[in-house]
Amino acid sequence: MTSSISPPVVAARRAALVTAMRERGAGLFLSEAMPDIRHYTGCMDAGGTLLIDREDRATFLTNAHDAPQALSEAIETEIRVAFPNEDANALLAKVLEATAGPILTPALSAGRHLWLIAQGHDVRMEPGITSHLRRVKEAGELLLIRQAARIVETGMAAARDALRPGVREIEVAAAAELAMRREGMDGRIFETKVESGPRSAMPSTYAGQRVLEAGDLVLIDIGPTFHGYFGDLTRTFAVGEPSAEAKHLLALVLEAQAAGIAAVRAGATGHAVDEAARIPVRAAGLEAGFRHNTGHSLGLAGDSLPLIAPGSMSPLRAGEGITVEPGVYVEGVGGVRIEDEILVTVGGCEVITSFPKTLSDLIVPTP
Amino acid sequence: MTSSISPPVVAARRAALVTAMRERGAGLFLSEAMPDIRHYTGCMDAGGTLLIDREDRATFLTNAHDAPQALSEAIETEIRVAFPNEDANALLAKVLEATAGPILTPALSAGRHLWLIAQGHDVRMEPGITSHLRRVKEAGELLLIRQAARIVETGMAAARDALRPGVREIEVAAAAELAMRREGMDGRIFETKVESGPRSAMPSTYAGQRVLEAGDLVLIDIGPTFHGYFGDLTRTFAVGEPSAEAKHLLALVLEAQAAGIAAVRAGATGHAVDEAARIPVRAAGLEAGFRHNTGHSLGLAGDSLPLIAPGSMSPLRAGEGITVEPGVYVEGVGGVRIEDEILVTVGGCEVITSFPKTLSDLIVPTP
Repeated sequence: MTSSISPPVVAARRAALVTAMRERGAGLFLSEAMPDIRHYTGCMDAGGTLLIDREDRATFLTNAHDAPQALSEAIETEIRVAFPNEDANALLAKVLEATAGPILTPALSAGRHLWLIAQGHDVRMEPGITSHLRRVKEAGELLLIRQAARIVETGMAAARDALRPGVREIEVAAAAELAMRREGMDGRIFETKVESGPRSAMPSTYAGQRVLEAGDLVLIDIGPTFHGYFGDLTRTFAVGEPSAEAKHLLALVLEAQAAGIAAVRAGATGHAVDEAARIPVRAAGLEAGFRHNTGHSLGLAGDSLPLIAPGSMSPLRAGEGITVEPGVYVEGVGGVRIEDEILVTVGGCEVITSFPKTLSDLIVPTP
Repeated sequence: MTSSISPPVVAARRAALVTAMRERGAGLFLSEAMPDIRHYTGCMDAGGTLLIDREDRATFLTNAHDAPQALSEAIETEIRVAFPNEDANALLAKVLEATAGPILTPALSAGRHLWLIAQGHDVRMEPGITSHLRRVKEAGELLLIRQAARIVETGMAAARDALRPGVREIEVAAAAELAMRREGMDGRIFETKVESGPRSAMPSTYAGQRVLEAGDLVLIDIGPTFHGYFGDLTRTFAVGEPSAEAKHLLALVLEAQAAGIAAVRAGATGHAVDEAARIPVRAAGLEAGFRHNTGHSLGLAGDSLPLIAPGSMSPLRAGEGITVEPGVYVEGVGGVRIEDEILVTVGGCEVITSFPKTLSDLIVPTP
């Protein structure tokens, strides 16, 4: 993958990280998380351990398999290569010899944590620290996020155009994915979901062998990546004229999503946005069917902040990206989820996915 | 996903786990790993924390989103549901109140490990313990592994049939994936790799936008899943007549793979199989280009044992599954990898993927 990151961008990111390290009295930052590796070194697909000291010297320990990409993509980072299954800890121990002061890390396996402690290191975990530093997006990140949004819209259009009675869910998914690959999709954050008829009431399954029937609700959720950033878009279509109950569910979720989006602005909490989307569903007596959070963060695949969920009391800031995606799932009727990507602004927000979603847009006529 | 697991199968698996717990004096088994959840509960796609006590009572803590599948699939397992972002630790603490004796776990995040210790629990990590218990496959598992092998062969045939100058790598990948979906593929262990021309010398990239040219080497590696079990097959094709160097590389890797496969038998070590495949490559002066292990385990996605790698001294046993996949990557010429799936038998092995791979099979004539 060609890196889309320039040295000045990496320098600014690392300066922010080093500031956070100094504020916490840390001597070294350590992470094995792909978003951290991508963000702070420019290496897009290499696995390993990233170390950055408080003088901003970065070392990335990787394996022989991933080394060619790492060497071609790394920005201001020394690459150290361990042969596969050489004891990665032995190489790490060598690099850690020069470390003074506590090791700051966003996450770690318990095994490596115990090993570091046994080596005499002071390890300080701060979950989400780097995801937090990445909440407000840079200009270059926004370009990638917008491109990923174009890719996912292209996929949704191809999926919608493939909907008709007699087609299998997997054929709809394949149509979406080929279209997205042609637009530059280079990975995915989940398997494409195409859930039709009764399966739409069971969230979190994938496209299967079921053949679409007239009157089905079909829930389609797509998550391509582009240079590490993801697009994420959900629509639920009716194939032919839906039942009165299905139509009511579609209208209700559209109302809930509009209410959630209307609550987004800098200063609002994730909790408030979630609650705004829940109110119409609660009023309809269907909150038990709203089985997930209203949304999540948008940006680098793997980052988790901000949460758009009950109890998420950290205020949103201008320049953060989120999704708003209420869903209601009713056995015997089906499930409906509608999701868009949103950038938080000072007075409100910008919805950056513009795929059609009026009630009539969501009803696909049968031939 | 429909579960392919029956209650007697789960009972036998759990009996083996409980025996291992008692041998170690453990009071409770705890895992968050998908292969453990699938293997011991039958829940195929639900995330959460699995707890099994030494009286074989199983509890699975999951979230509202995944609960419908978990409830429909679970075998002899109590499902407890936390609302998303309800403190999962609070629910876990309640379940752990009844625990007596140390907690045995194959892996854990450092955060949860610290939390368990703070709650006064004695936590004993034994990495790979469950992967080790699953090394020898059951009859039912072998059926799923063989079906996944059929699926990946179908994908490889579709990919090969799509190879011609002027086609993009992504179109080749899309052809493979649609064919596999029609055969029942329900996920993947990695993005389909189609690496052509100079890109074939850089292992671990994915299908991209490059247009195939006559004379290209094209490395194709595919990893579909079927009910949690994966297929994994690699072929490297020449599109039209390859250069003499490329032909030499193809012949060398075929020789290396044959040597590796010939070394597989019950009692041989992963180290010995790896070394056997390396010898011809070393003799050709190209070992520096053999940048990864010779193989890995075959079975449930996420399991890691046995390793077919330098230093892997645990003897293979009859009924274990592995891959043998040497690769040599030379800048300016290209990369070649050939991979098949193999079951270890008493006197040797059975190669369960039969996709053609003579030198002439690997040269695809141009129209």
